[in-house]
Amino acid sequence: MPQYTAPVRDTRFILSEVIGLDRYANLPGFENAGAELVDAVLDEGGRFVAEVLFPLNHSGDQQGCTRHADGSVTTPDGFKEAYAKFREGGWSTLSAPEAFGGQGLPHVVSTAFEEYMISANMAFAMYPGLTHGAAAAILAKGSDEQKATYLPKMVSGEWGGTMNLTEPQCGTDLGLIRTRAEPQADGSYRISGTKIFISSGEHDLTDNIIHLVLAKTPDAPESTKGISLFVVPKFLVNADGSLGERNAVACGSIEHKMGIHANSTCVMNYDGATGWMVGEENKGLAAMFIMMNVARLGVGLQGLGIGEVAYQNAVQYAGDRRQGRALTGPKEPNEKADPLFVHPDVRRMLMEAKALTEGLRALCLWGALQVDLSHKAQTEEEREAADDLISLLTPVIKGFGTDAGYRIATDAQQVYGGHGYIAEWGMEQYVRDARIAMIYEGTNGVQAMDLVGRKLAQKGGRAVQALFALVDAETAAAKDHVRMGDFAQRLEKANGELTAATMWFMANGMQNPEHVGAGAYSYMNLMGLVSVGLMWLRMGLAAARALEAGGGDAKFYEAKLVTARFYGERLLPDAGALRRKIEGGAESIMALEPEMFRAA
Amino acid sequence: MPQYTAPVRDTRFILSEVIGLDRYANLPGFENAGAELVDAVLDEGGRFVAEVLFPLNHSGDQQGCTRHADGSVTTPDGFKEAYAKFREGGWSTLSAPEAFGGQGLPHVVSTAFEEYMISANMAFAMYPGLTHGAAAAILAKGSDEQKATYLPKMVSGEWGGTMNLTEPQCGTDLGLIRTRAEPQADGSYRISGTKIFISSGEHDLTDNIIHLVLAKTPDAPESTKGISLFVVPKFLVNADGSLGERNAVACGSIEHKMGIHANSTCVMNYDGATGWMVGEENKGLAAMFIMMNVARLGVGLQGLGIGEVAYQNAVQYAGDRRQGRALTGPKEPNEKADPLFVHPDVRRMLMEAKALTEGLRALCLWGALQVDLSHKAQTEEEREAADDLISLLTPVIKGFGTDAGYRIATDAQQVYGGHGYIAEWGMEQYVRDARIAMIYEGTNGVQAMDLVGRKLAQKGGRAVQALFALVDAETAAAKDHVRMGDFAQRLEKANGELTAATMWFMANGMQNPEHVGAGAYSYMNLMGLVSVGLMWLRMGLAAARALEAGGGDAKFYEAKLVTARFYGERLLPDAGALRRKIEGGAESIMALEPEMFRAA
Repeated sequence: MPQYTAPVRDTRFILSEVIGLDRYANLPGFENAGAELVDAVLDEGGRFVAEVLFPLNHSGDQQGCTRHADGSVTTPDGFKEAYAKFREGGWSTLSAPEAFGGQGLPHVVSTAFEEYMISANMAFAMYPGLTHGAAAAILAKGSDEQKATYLPKMVSGEWGGTMNLTEPQCGTDLGLIRTRAEPQADGSYRISGTKIFISSGEHDLTDNIIHLVLAKTPDAPESTKGISLFVVPKFLVNADGSLGERNAVACGSIEHKMGIHANSTCVMNYDGATGWMVGEENKGLAAMFIMMNVARLGVGLQGLGIGEVAYQNAVQYAGDRRQGRALTGPKEPNEKADPLFVHPDVRRMLMEAKALTEGLRALCLWGALQVDLSHKAQTEEEREAADDLISLLTPVIKGFGTDAGYRIATDAQQVYGGHGYIAEWGMEQYVRDARIAMIYEGTNGVQAMDLVGRKLAQKGGRAVQALFALVDAETAAAKDHVRMGDFAQRLEKANGELTAATMWFMANGMQNPEHVGAGAYSYMNLMGLVSVGLMWLRMGLAAARALEAGGGDAKFYEAKLVTARFYGERLLPDAGALRRKIEGGAESIMALEPEMFRAA
Repeated sequence: MPQYTAPVRDTRFILSEVIGLDRYANLPGFENAGAELVDAVLDEGGRFVAEVLFPLNHSGDQQGCTRHADGSVTTPDGFKEAYAKFREGGWSTLSAPEAFGGQGLPHVVSTAFEEYMISANMAFAMYPGLTHGAAAAILAKGSDEQKATYLPKMVSGEWGGTMNLTEPQCGTDLGLIRTRAEPQADGSYRISGTKIFISSGEHDLTDNIIHLVLAKTPDAPESTKGISLFVVPKFLVNADGSLGERNAVACGSIEHKMGIHANSTCVMNYDGATGWMVGEENKGLAAMFIMMNVARLGVGLQGLGIGEVAYQNAVQYAGDRRQGRALTGPKEPNEKADPLFVHPDVRRMLMEAKALTEGLRALCLWGALQVDLSHKAQTEEEREAADDLISLLTPVIKGFGTDAGYRIATDAQQVYGGHGYIAEWGMEQYVRDARIAMIYEGTNGVQAMDLVGRKLAQKGGRAVQALFALVDAETAAAKDHVRMGDFAQRLEKANGELTAATMWFMANGMQNPEHVGAGAYSYMNLMGLVSVGLMWLRMGLAAARALEAGGGDAKFYEAKLVTARFYGERLLPDAGALRRKIEGGAESIMALEPEMFRAA
């Protein structure tokens, strides 16, 4: 059976030595996030998820959720009790606003904890994860009354939340939704329609579930310009905050999925359910994107979280399992065989996993910091710069991060050989669970299009120019560094490929936007490679500083430098290939008529 | 629910226009394999698998195999009847020797059929697939009596066969096996031990199951030099060929796996079972490799087969599902949205799948032809040349082919968006089924080591030199070709990267063999890229010839030229990156001590 230990040492390294949290102590929320408190969150959070959530991961997968004849859904054995402990521990409140009962900690701190929760039990983590997304939309767009009604209990975890976008005929193309919202005399709406793939749509963990639902008012324009957002609680809420009557929304069935079996993925039927508009009429898409951007960063974190736990287990197995001998002669001649660790190709998989998980951890936390800074930095300029960066990088974190998570999980399973394919070892679950993250909250292809079609050009390309400048400046400064100089040069080169690819889009996209679409996915990967590369430059430099300063833990820091080198030698070379693919353009991709794809 | 149509048109193109089967009509077995007969095999075989095997694929996955209290195993509903039809149709006998009731057709023809069978139902195809591997070992190494006793009924499919290698403590490192074989006075052996992961180990499809078992005789040397191969029938066979008493071999349990649920993967307990040695004592590994090489090519074919059926369904869905609009404006303005086909990133996934499946089909069939030629070519020189090539390419076809199959299945699932994750759509099964092919019959990492550690150096590197020369000659000849010249130049460049990587291994491997091990996987991918590239050069040239000759079917041939171009522009660029990774060497991969991988 798999094991999990929260990588607290690594998180702490990133927060204190790479990001330097204490530099932001003057900002609201950060003043409380001193090293001592952060350490406590990481230590206790890591212990909580390992002790309470992780033991339910495999059993939850095997048992799954159950829908009963009355439409109620029960989660796997132990989930209810674990959720109660999650609430009691205050784990749902970390970065929620103090005005609604939250602890007001920086997003960067709660993100660290969320990674651990995902590693321990991704399906479980989705219940509070969705609540978090739904609460974000109410916080940003809801009326004061809506905030007061819903947020305190969503923050405390007493109530859950969901996001209802997809319908049978549409996922990505939300202009096609058919769910209707009929205005009532009292200002409420009657919501009717069917939503599918609703994560945590119905379950037994919370007293109420607050559904956020995209629907169309009568005479709303076709297209996404005619979508509004509604809040539709499972139980109506009385004026005194107590639960009132059951609303006309019900789970019609739960899906049989490849993975995340312990999260209830529901078909939700709205039969004239009572709801209230959140934000302005026909501006639902903008409100939805508030949730969506929170969710996308959370999904990117799923790539990291699953990658981390799969990696940890592969490392364990590579040490335990003996098979064959080192190429340079027996390493442990008294044993019948050497551990898998001696084999370079096993190491290759472990090093890739290490380089990607640690790099993604830094990127996710740095991204979370940008979210904080976009709200809390002292000047408008700083806030905008942070917002630019995180807007640009959200699809990269989601797309590159979840592709990496799947790849790491697949490689970790591979380290186990045949045992990796057997359910009881637990590794195949990670592959199945990791797979969904590439699909939901916008497929990774949709992320790539968001990146090249929307984010690149925003505000005259300011964000991407800022990223280039950042990488240019930091690589230039490190070029002659004794330990990281070679890496800096490799990263500079990769950044050059990214810059060139961007120029190629600019030169060719006007003539034919399909040139951009055809290269979008490679471009997303290229930006991911460079962004994680920037994190490795920073981590390598921080490690070198620490080694120079002495003070112990030398192996930890040496490992960082080796892993940075590995990233430069073994992963950055893809940058050139990705650029050349992008420059291949759209012609060979778009030339075939659909029937020419079909088998004859 | 998925659909499947055997790609008969494409197979025929490869056999007649790319490989040119009629050029070999003077060889034994090929004289019967005229165009008419081959067409009949492809047409009828394609129809048989689509009508009989494919409808059982999803239900077989959902139901799985069942082990009963008495140790018997039943396959999913319908499998027994389908297997009877498989036997009746003579599908098990295609390329088996006529002396044992086979049709004596070339391996290249049966390989074409086997691809279809895998696409239609991989778990089903494994039952005859394993029989085929076991029969190959008896044919090559068995005594005349063993051949006469077992082969006719294995060829006819009346009896099944298995390969028993893996034990709980060893898979790759067969020197560690513990199963014992005690010699008896009558020349037989009593076999005792436990084997795991035995595909088709016990089932209800055949009257008898012929297990080929690796075991150690008393006083056998430690290591793989002390392994012998034994034939252990489930039911002993009387002198008159009728079934005698039940042998002391039984299925202890069946594994719960990620996929191929409809194939029974068994723990097999040998409790003093009666067996007979096949071939010489302590030479079991060589005999095992006879089976293994057959099996590895068959597993490579699984990558292709799953890739093909997943691709076909993604194409179908991309035409049926409407979502969003083309970047260049609505393609079907009367509909509410355009089909997925208009989106370049969807096309990218479909084109990659098309380029890889069609390229792998050519490679697998060309490889199968080398197997035929290694036995049947007229001169010793030709036979050796064919044997060199297929020995070299077997790990490439297995490793590169199955990685590609998993990638294609994953991408095909991705085209379906959220629906791809739901079991009833059938796409997630392809991912789960494809996954095992990267693991069994030697993980793909083991294939890579077989390639660089054994195959490269064999006979002074003759095989790899021959491959380079082939690609050099064919790219040089096509360099100025009006349609394929650009591709030929790209392939020449990729072949240059492969050559340079090979030189790098030679220059650095002596100093430290880990430099070779560290680059093995990239090298396998690089050789796969070049080998499939060679196939695309040939297919492109054949298509250009056909277009020049007129004669219709122009769209089919134009699609080949477009897909070749895509392969050159979008897949071959990886060659440079792979070479640079190889040249990164072992240092950053091997530097960390095991404890430096562990989370702190």
